[in-house]
Amino acid sequence: MELSSNWRWKFEGSEVAKKASAFTIRSYLNPLRETIDKSDITKSVIPLSHGDPSGFPSFRTTKLSEDALLDALQSAKYNGYPDPQTCYILQATRAVAEYLSHDYPHELSANDVLMTAGAKQAIDVLITALAVPGANILLPRPGYPTYEAIATFTHLEMRHYDLLPEQDWEVDIDGVEALADDRTVAIVVINPGNPCGNVYKREHLKKIAEAARKVGMLVISDEAYAHLVFGSNPFVPMGVFGEISPILTIGSISKKWMVPGWRLGWIAMCDPNGILQKHGVVESIKNYLNLGIVPPALTLGAITRILVETPEDFYSNTINLLRKAADICYTGLREIRCFTPYKPHGSMFLMAKLNLSFLEGINSDLEFCTRLAREESVVVLPGEALGMKNWVRVTFAVEISVLEDGLSRIKAFCFRNAKQQ
Amino acid sequence: MELSSNWRWKFEGSEVAKKASAFTIRSYLNPLRETIDKSDITKSVIPLSHGDPSGFPSFRTTKLSEDALLDALQSAKYNGYPDPQTCYILQATRAVAEYLSHDYPHELSANDVLMTAGAKQAIDVLITALAVPGANILLPRPGYPTYEAIATFTHLEMRHYDLLPEQDWEVDIDGVEALADDRTVAIVVINPGNPCGNVYKREHLKKIAEAARKVGMLVISDEAYAHLVFGSNPFVPMGVFGEISPILTIGSISKKWMVPGWRLGWIAMCDPNGILQKHGVVESIKNYLNLGIVPPALTLGAITRILVETPEDFYSNTINLLRKAADICYTGLREIRCFTPYKPHGSMFLMAKLNLSFLEGINSDLEFCTRLAREESVVVLPGEALGMKNWVRVTFAVEISVLEDGLSRIKAFCFRNAKQQ
Ligand SMILES: Cc1ncc(COP(=O)(O)O)c(C=O)c1O
Ligand SMILES: Cc1ncc(COP(=O)(O)O)c(C=O)c1O
Repeated sequence: MELSSNWRWKFEGSEVAKKASAFTIRSYLNPLRETIDKSDITKSVIPLSHGDPSGFPSFRTTKLSEDALLDALQSAKYNGYPDPQTCYILQATRAVAEYLSHDYPHELSANDVLMTAGAKQAIDVLITALAVPGANILLPRPGYPTYEAIATFTHLEMRHYDLLPEQDWEVDIDGVEALADDRTVAIVVINPGNPCGNVYKREHLKKIAEAARKVGMLVISDEAYAHLVFGSNPFVPMGVFGEISPILTIGSISKKWMVPGWRLGWIAMCDPNGILQKHGVVESIKNYLNLGIVPPALTLGAITRILVETPEDFYSNTINLLRKAADICYTGLREIRCFTPYKPHGSMFLMAKLNLSFLEGINSDLEFCTRLAREESVVVLPGEALGMKNWVRVTFAVEISVLEDGLSRIKAFCFRNAKQQ
Repeated sequence: MELSSNWRWKFEGSEVAKKASAFTIRSYLNPLRETIDKSDITKSVIPLSHGDPSGFPSFRTTKLSEDALLDALQSAKYNGYPDPQTCYILQATRAVAEYLSHDYPHELSANDVLMTAGAKQAIDVLITALAVPGANILLPRPGYPTYEAIATFTHLEMRHYDLLPEQDWEVDIDGVEALADDRTVAIVVINPGNPCGNVYKREHLKKIAEAARKVGMLVISDEAYAHLVFGSNPFVPMGVFGEISPILTIGSISKKWMVPGWRLGWIAMCDPNGILQKHGVVESIKNYLNLGIVPPALTLGAITRILVETPEDFYSNTINLLRKAADICYTGLREIRCFTPYKPHGSMFLMAKLNLSFLEGINSDLEFCTRLAREESVVVLPGEALGMKNWVRVTFAVEISVLEDGLSRIKAFCFRNAKQQ
């Protein structure tokens, strides 16, 4: 074949995917995992780095969930596309609306709910639907980096407001108001919190909604960890303040039911005044969902039973386990000189400040995590991944024996690397 | 609360989602479905509009697939995130690589395969990874509008090349070369074809690869309907010509195994010369996948058995059924004066030209389809949705009795609305 003199392959990879990917937790965890010395068979890998305890026996999902999925499979009714024409989605949205309504002063209707392939897709859809040129969004620091990744990807400018460690990681409301401007369209609030384990009081949530109203922005309330609370504050959904400011709530079965691999989440629009509709946000969300990533049909077929019939003791067992694990983790880290952990009240994580001046030859959180992975096969997330240099995020939601093993290895590591005084 | 005088809600829906959504098949089908007279209980709805026969008894997936999923569920090993650290993905990519290698002169390795949540996500990922500012992509007309939707969304300029109805819908290669320019990065080829039912000969595929090389673009070969062929041409994967031009192959279990609701697909990189890697395309694809939509873990857990153990007679039954249905559909439409159907050799669809001059008071394909839905509860896709005004796409992949009922209703409709001569 004759090729012209200036011939070349003309394709190249998109830069924005690279920039966006750099924000992901995976982009930090993958190298840490590669660092681990796999030849050291005396040390199993201890993953205190991500929020998925579903593989540990104590955290296994209920028989009920498994049965519900089994029935869906055996019915052969859920092999097809979850098309709007089929009953799958309508049944599911109705079930989620009823489920959520328990916690609300007003009833949510099936029309207020949209099903997604996990909370992740909900984040993708919402951020993308709001990304109009010139707009900006307020994200928490520390937060959940998927927001940063998707915002980068859709060219939505992001501005970070602080969570206040000394005030149980409450939102710095003054900071929020100072950050916002005429093009601020939304604030993201994660409650119960990843990575801080915060559980906000009703009054604090109300203040956030009021601040949102003042700015003229909506609230995206990420409630992926809804009900996973074990401190004195009960879980309150942000949506109860939908009269003050429109709330887009993100939910998921990944955490409460311990089945993240089943990929089902939702967006609930808590907006009794119909403001989202009027501003074209509902249409935009639906348009984007139309492009076609749909949740697995089988999980849609199982969701009603999962929400309605899961026995109460599964939930209380989970809470008790998480409380116990959180205590062990918090207490364990407090005994290590270079750590200042902050007590979690919900979710699966806590944040701990690293005081590097107690350590010899370790100059950053990243270095700390890399050496910990290499020397002890324990993986924790460097705070840098969350915009918090020289902090670490530790997942306590693992089997208790694993957590204890992990903590004692962290202790040994810190002791071994302690600065001589 | 005091609000400033120029206060307003500042959020609005993104326009691009609207523009992109307008391309989707759903945006055409939803109104058609709403048109149907649900009070007419004598007429069940006949969906000849989309490619999902999985709900019909004759097309039900194998017991083997169902058992494989059941085992995955009961093992409790596939409830968690399909994280790269887990074995799920590695097992699955290895299984897909081995499966695809049967049809290739060289072995694909697990590293050449990436798992996606269906072919749809594969399309999303590939188009997005290639969408650099100023680039353009060549899409078939008629085609599968998800490409148009995602290209719109990612601001990738699209140019349409023609498929030639009188040459078994082959690619107009001269047209392709004329369309391409210095910024053309890829051509999309759908084979076996949706919507045309084309199955390309080996020589024709080779010509496409050569044209791609000449232009300096890669080929995206959408093989969602791989092996679903029932004419004289065997299915040949485009990837066998990866030496000529890099091929990104899209595959899925949705069609061949009749489980679109299970959401599993893949991207196979057929590029023995490593050109995609060199040009940053592999990295960009991986980066984009990193952002986080993952396939359901259970399906990943089942895929190896599905690919390896599905009994041959399931495949041959499907082919025989599709052949029979395609014949009935083609012959049936040929008997109706206003239709010129084109014989399909694979996939689940055929295209038929509408000659409106034989009809009274029907002035477009859209009007034809709307009135057919309203009067006969039969849904077919207007060609306009595919860039082919005054054609229709008809799905023959439905239960034979349903197809026959649908065809006789179409006949009655055309007869009733025939122009008096
Ligand atoms: C705050 C937060 N939101 C959303 C998600 C995504 O959850 P899903 O598994 O439902 O996609 C996670 C997962 O870790 C999370 O921590
Ligand atoms: C040509 C083509 N590609 C891709 C897809 C998407 O398939 P999947 O169900 O695997 O997402 C379809 C579905 O109809 C299709 O027709």
